[in-house]
Amino acid sequence: MFTGSEVEAAAARIAGHIRTTPVMAAGPGLFMKLEHVQHTGSFKARGAFNRILAAREDGELPENGVIAASGGNAGVAVAHAAVALGVPAEVYVPETAPEVKVRKLTALGATVRRVGRIYGDAYEAAIKRVADTGALFCHAYDQPEICAGQGTVGLELLAQTGGVDTILIAVGGGGLMAGVAAAVEGRAKVVGVEPERIPTLNRALEAGGPVDVEVGGTSADSLGATRLGDIAFEVAVRTGVESLLVTDADIARARRALWDDHRLVVEHGTAAALAALATGAYRPRPGERVAVILCGANTDPSDLAG
Amino acid sequence: MFTGSEVEAAAARIAGHIRTTPVMAAGPGLFMKLEHVQHTGSFKARGAFNRILAAREDGELPENGVIAASGGNAGVAVAHAAVALGVPAEVYVPETAPEVKVRKLTALGATVRRVGRIYGDAYEAAIKRVADTGALFCHAYDQPEICAGQGTVGLELLAQTGGVDTILIAVGGGGLMAGVAAAVEGRAKVVGVEPERIPTLNRALEAGGPVDVEVGGTSADSLGATRLGDIAFEVAVRTGVESLLVTDADIARARRALWDDHRLVVEHGTAAALAALATGAYRPRPGERVAVILCGANTDPSDLAG
Repeated sequence: MFTGSEVEAAAARIAGHIRTTPVMAAGPGLFMKLEHVQHTGSFKARGAFNRILAAREDGELPENGVIAASGGNAGVAVAHAAVALGVPAEVYVPETAPEVKVRKLTALGATVRRVGRIYGDAYEAAIKRVADTGALFCHAYDQPEICAGQGTVGLELLAQTGGVDTILIAVGGGGLMAGVAAAVEGRAKVVGVEPERIPTLNRALEAGGPVDVEVGGTSADSLGATRLGDIAFEVAVRTGVESLLVTDADIARARRALWDDHRLVVEHGTAAALAALATGAYRPRPGERVAVILCGANTDPSDLAG
Repeated sequence: MFTGSEVEAAAARIAGHIRTTPVMAAGPGLFMKLEHVQHTGSFKARGAFNRILAAREDGELPENGVIAASGGNAGVAVAHAAVALGVPAEVYVPETAPEVKVRKLTALGATVRRVGRIYGDAYEAAIKRVADTGALFCHAYDQPEICAGQGTVGLELLAQTGGVDTILIAVGGGGLMAGVAAAVEGRAKVVGVEPERIPTLNRALEAGGPVDVEVGGTSADSLGATRLGDIAFEVAVRTGVESLLVTDADIARARRALWDDHRLVVEHGTAAALAALATGAYRPRPGERVAVILCGANTDPSDLAG
């Protein structure tokens, strides 16, 4: 069972490697956690550091380093953490991965392997490489150390705000949701918000377990996991995580409004959490203290001009 | 004499109307004050609220409202504060003002008057209108209530950080610098940073008083005052504000790095303060606690893509 004690341990482990990100009051009883200003532009740096440091602590960090399969936020975070800790990193991406993402991983110091036409091919190749070499695999969301690292956002948030009733979190594979829900269990309610076109949590709760979903829409680059993680499902059910869906149009409006009203830039997937409030999909009761985690900003801000 | 007591009064007056903006630790002994997420995307909202509320407090707020001359951050801030307080706002801009800025002012609820070919023409027309109507003029920087409002950023910063040794501030007309330097007098040193191509503070200190300078370069839209305010000069000399210059290229690099490393978007003028650190123009001594005020984000973020 994945619980808050793993998150507490992670917080102690990664302190000094990650940024304590600011919280801002955004209205009466409303807080925004600016986690998108974290190293690498997303919360994923927390899990990556925790995964690698926990392995080192246990004497289980192989000399040939770590392996990830992701051309997105998870891959960048693993590359950053590994290089910062002096550990080799191999990141598998499909051949179709945009050149700009490959350049970013390479610039960080990772070795990039381009395999296959879709993400699944790159993932399979990474898993095979791990089996062949004994390198440490860093999953994008479904490992206890990864979830525990992500969950430290929740501990930080409670400390900075003096406590909230509800935390709105965008959900892809569910690593952040799982970590935060475990971290704040018994102290705050977690609401997982997803784009209608990538309803991994919503369908998992309906089906009684993670199921594959079709992935589409504007948030696919950051919330594009095809199914919820097993840890995320277990924590969501145990702690009573609520599930809400928003449309891509809602997300685009929330992202735009965040720039117009607060001069903050986030990626589309991140804006889903805010969209749940803006649309009234989530309606706080009078006096309820609500926090929205802004969890990533690896986005092209060009469309926000004007 | 303009002193910190005016800033303390302003802080009490504008509380509830402005945002307490977050501070983020950005390295050992280094803090960034994220004032660019303030209402209207710059610190100018503080001064605008203080100017109008102080007049109302004194029974000197005319029924025909307030007048400003600015197509930039100051005008937008006055329009926002006036409308929020239920006060009519007239904003004078030159006929050459970009349509997007005029639309923004109009959308906020201000009446926009387009007069003349350059800013000076719009300013003269605004002053004449004030004389004719008795409306309250809101200067872009050189009024005690305006400087006092801007200075509340400094009080907030000291409270949030538990104190710093040095505060780096971008200088245009000097309203923010004056307010903060007065607010923190005897508690922290202020360094005013300017683009080489708009050296209002630098030349004023050399000349022994504010002098007209040529305005050019990439920061002209936000730091484009042609001379330092009289209040700013008096406070700068009295409190020992230091002056540093940076190049437009330094500013562009600092703005880019802030996006790349922290996913924060600021306008060019704002990045000047950060550029002083990045270039080594300002070198903190070991153990020195330094804060950089990020004061505005009314910028086109398109060039940050990729």
